[in-house]
Amino acid sequence: MSELFCDRLLDAIDYTKSPICVGIDPIVESLPSPVREKFLSRDDEPQAAIDAIFDFTTRVLKIVAPLVPIVKFQSAFFEQYLWEGVEAYYSLIQEAKDLGLLVIGDVKRGDIGSTASAYAAGHLAEQTAATDVEIATPDAITVNPMLGLDTLEPFVKTAKEFSKGLFVLVRTSNPGSGQLQDAILQSGQTWSEMLAENLAKIAADPALVGSRGFSSIGAVVGATQAHTIQILRKKLPKSIFLLPGYGTQGATAEMTRAAFTDGRGAIVSASRSILYAEKNEKYSSQFKDNWEKCVEAAVMDMKREIAQVIGG
Amino acid sequence: MSELFCDRLLDAIDYTKSPICVGIDPIVESLPSPVREKFLSRDDEPQAAIDAIFDFTTRVLKIVAPLVPIVKFQSAFFEQYLWEGVEAYYSLIQEAKDLGLLVIGDVKRGDIGSTASAYAAGHLAEQTAATDVEIATPDAITVNPMLGLDTLEPFVKTAKEFSKGLFVLVRTSNPGSGQLQDAILQSGQTWSEMLAENLAKIAADPALVGSRGFSSIGAVVGATQAHTIQILRKKLPKSIFLLPGYGTQGATAEMTRAAFTDGRGAIVSASRSILYAEKNEKYSSQFKDNWEKCVEAAVMDMKREIAQVIGG
Repeated sequence: MSELFCDRLLDAIDYTKSPICVGIDPIVESLPSPVREKFLSRDDEPQAAIDAIFDFTTRVLKIVAPLVPIVKFQSAFFEQYLWEGVEAYYSLIQEAKDLGLLVIGDVKRGDIGSTASAYAAGHLAEQTAATDVEIATPDAITVNPMLGLDTLEPFVKTAKEFSKGLFVLVRTSNPGSGQLQDAILQSGQTWSEMLAENLAKIAADPALVGSRGFSSIGAVVGATQAHTIQILRKKLPKSIFLLPGYGTQGATAEMTRAAFTDGRGAIVSASRSILYAEKNEKYSSQFKDNWEKCVEAAVMDMKREIAQVIGG
Repeated sequence: MSELFCDRLLDAIDYTKSPICVGIDPIVESLPSPVREKFLSRDDEPQAAIDAIFDFTTRVLKIVAPLVPIVKFQSAFFEQYLWEGVEAYYSLIQEAKDLGLLVIGDVKRGDIGSTASAYAAGHLAEQTAATDVEIATPDAITVNPMLGLDTLEPFVKTAKEFSKGLFVLVRTSNPGSGQLQDAILQSGQTWSEMLAENLAKIAADPALVGSRGFSSIGAVVGATQAHTIQILRKKLPKSIFLLPGYGTQGATAEMTRAAFTDGRGAIVSASRSILYAEKNEKYSSQFKDNWEKCVEAAVMDMKREIAQVIGG
């Protein structure tokens, strides 16, 4: 795996013709009825929940693998079930990779010095479990830079060593994100813009920039603010943008347009609008109780919507 | 456990006469020779490392339990060993609680909405593992507020429900922390000061404030900037400060003075200067190869130094 993460991702986007990331946010209460009922009739609560999540996610991965280049696992929904949940997280990453998918671990870790190195080891490095089996780790993880851009160094070092990638939180998609991230500095720019300018220097490291001019150090930029995307795109010309907020959080395909440069350099992420598409009348009316068909149709619709915007 | 976390912590500080937190940062390469050699002669690498960490930490907990009120587990050093490491993390939290210690989980999590709720469930709520055994979770965790103070709500809700606490990152102790956290806003204040002002409103919730006027919503403020501590103390009058950076990172007892109000309201955290005290000539010359005596002496010295400053 010597090819840079950025090149592997851009190749996979070209191959699938869809700059789309499916977010794996498995929530037991939201699972399609057949999956939920089968397992929640059991009386071994946490294990039943983990099994339900495992079964559901495995089926989702099989549906989306031919359609999209990459999936994003939300660590919190596995950590919620303690170490058994964490074991399921790593097993499902292996499943995704076996299906040819690239994987982002949405862990939003951030810490200093050797602590950051330990996080990078657990979440990005090649790993061997105590059972001496090789364990697949994500191709890229999300990281939180609040502690300072110096704290990204251990993550960058590990990313370089194992040809992995990072998506650094720059501007998130939640309603309250502006309070801290859009704070106006004396220089006139926002806090996120200043962060982006400094991140751009790290992303421009020639050892991280691939054959198409993009870097393995990407940025998380909420898809809910089109104007902000435009400004940050200029400040971070080499970073691939991971755009959450599509669908359930209200972002539309049109709002993501500014993230793309000649149709490249961004992946739009949707989680619940795809995973739980059977709750959407649009799909349930068409496919009745077949939740898997609903998932597939929701991905196909999203592909079409994004393709229209980037002219694919 | 209906008593508020803040009151339990302040009581324990009074009882042990030491506002000190011992940070559990177990790093195999740094372990005292006898512990390291015993386990690293084994050829089952990751399991041997986990066992070494488990053995070392258990012994440290026994030494410090009569001397300090609280310990802080650095999650990264356990996550590094995947789910087996995470299992050890929860087991050691149980060990610490059995010894009467309060426990902080240094996880620095932060995310939005139901994702934050899932993190709070895994790291703060009462938990039952798949084996149907009750699992001890930390009394408090560190959280990262970069995504917006609205994203703290699920953590605050869980803290209230289970009488737990939070330590919100406000100003960290690493060399590069100033770049983003001390950025000057148009209002003239720093980004951290603005964060502190908004956090103060959350911390002042009467349901979270205990009998001595302090809140269960604390703040992480690096002990390395005495002037910053002073300003943030004024902005966050109800928050107990967790002050990392003592010892190895260069902070002295004198530098922590401003965090205390009438000798109360802060805990000074030291990790490596205590855990690995045997590497300090001051202790090794006195106790030769007895690393446990070195740990004990380092805690006693730190107690004395802090007591001088707060007049205890």
